[in-house]
Amino acid sequence: MNGMEIIDISWPISADMTTYKNRSEVSVQETRTFERDGWRESAIALGCHTGTHIDAPAHFIKNGHLIHQTNLSALLRPCLVLDMTHVTNAISRADIAPHAQDIHPGEAILFKTTNSALPATQDFEPAFVYLDESGARYLAEKKIAAVGIDYLGIERGNPQHPTHIALMEGGVIIIEGLRLGHVRAGRYNLICLPLNILGVEAAPARAVLVRE
Amino acid sequence: MNGMEIIDISWPISADMTTYKNRSEVSVQETRTFERDGWRESAIALGCHTGTHIDAPAHFIKNGHLIHQTNLSALLRPCLVLDMTHVTNAISRADIAPHAQDIHPGEAILFKTTNSALPATQDFEPAFVYLDESGARYLAEKKIAAVGIDYLGIERGNPQHPTHIALMEGGVIIIEGLRLGHVRAGRYNLICLPLNILGVEAAPARAVLVRE
Repeated sequence: MNGMEIIDISWPISADMTTYKNRSEVSVQETRTFERDGWRESAIALGCHTGTHIDAPAHFIKNGHLIHQTNLSALLRPCLVLDMTHVTNAISRADIAPHAQDIHPGEAILFKTTNSALPATQDFEPAFVYLDESGARYLAEKKIAAVGIDYLGIERGNPQHPTHIALMEGGVIIIEGLRLGHVRAGRYNLICLPLNILGVEAAPARAVLVRE
Repeated sequence: MNGMEIIDISWPISADMTTYKNRSEVSVQETRTFERDGWRESAIALGCHTGTHIDAPAHFIKNGHLIHQTNLSALLRPCLVLDMTHVTNAISRADIAPHAQDIHPGEAILFKTTNSALPATQDFEPAFVYLDESGARYLAEKKIAAVGIDYLGIERGNPQHPTHIALMEGGVIIIEGLRLGHVRAGRYNLICLPLNILGVEAAPARAVLVRE
């Protein structure tokens, strides 16, 4: 693993970062300081869907598996970044199908959209580019291992969450909150590790792309 | 990256996990429930030195670099797990030197000690096995990239923190809070990614060992 290029694609975590529907308070606090204690210590508080994170099926499926039950091998594997910056609303089957011959079973697919051009600390953008149900079903048919998108959700506007459900039922792991503005479309190896939190439906993660 | 064995070496995060000197409150809370909201969401609050985590130099060196400035390549590389389960107090130069020919510059070294036999949720054990200053200086001389230990600190009993300082000044990244009880001594590839928190001195991380 020497001589490799490492590209960080994680959303920076800070008190002023964008959060889903501006809903989650993020706290980053210094609890010990050089001035008072002679060293520095900090603490954080955040929702499990803050910044770059993995949604486990238990988010929307009552008996779905939990984040600590995630098969990490699905997040450590070859990955294809697809350029979807021409899409203005939803990524659908018709947007992905032209790439069919490049999408192999067991890969991770990351969508780079105009979302990545939004500043990481501005108010939540409700009109973010998302993956619609037809696109999700197509990816599940293709038997990919994981899908990632460059905003804090992969779906919007449907209280039944059909995109999430199609992916979760299809065994496709969902990575939300990537930052891909500095990444060219193409092939990489994905390394994405969520925190090992017991018994919950999601966890913040760090994600990088590596290339020899 | 197919066909590989993945061994999780992360401390499980839960409200009842062991914390350094029993100091840090860890909160894992369900904020939305299937019963009330139709889906599940959770939030966490924890110190940045909770469970498996990386100490950046800014923890003990006032102008040291911060966690988001960590060179991730030091945490994605060949790694040697050394069996130190015979050590009852401190790992010193004399304990590491017999392995000199196996320790190569640029590697990560992980110490497996009797700490890994302690339950992950019991009260803090103040007599944990640690790395003393002579051992830290030896590792810095060997120009390793990172060192990891299987307890929530790598040092104890010295308010000057000489182990941390020797490692930090030597450019050796410090991984604390590993769980290695199920890992055999030997060679692996380390994959360890801390959360991308801006402006702080440490971050919780997920760590795994992989082997083809």
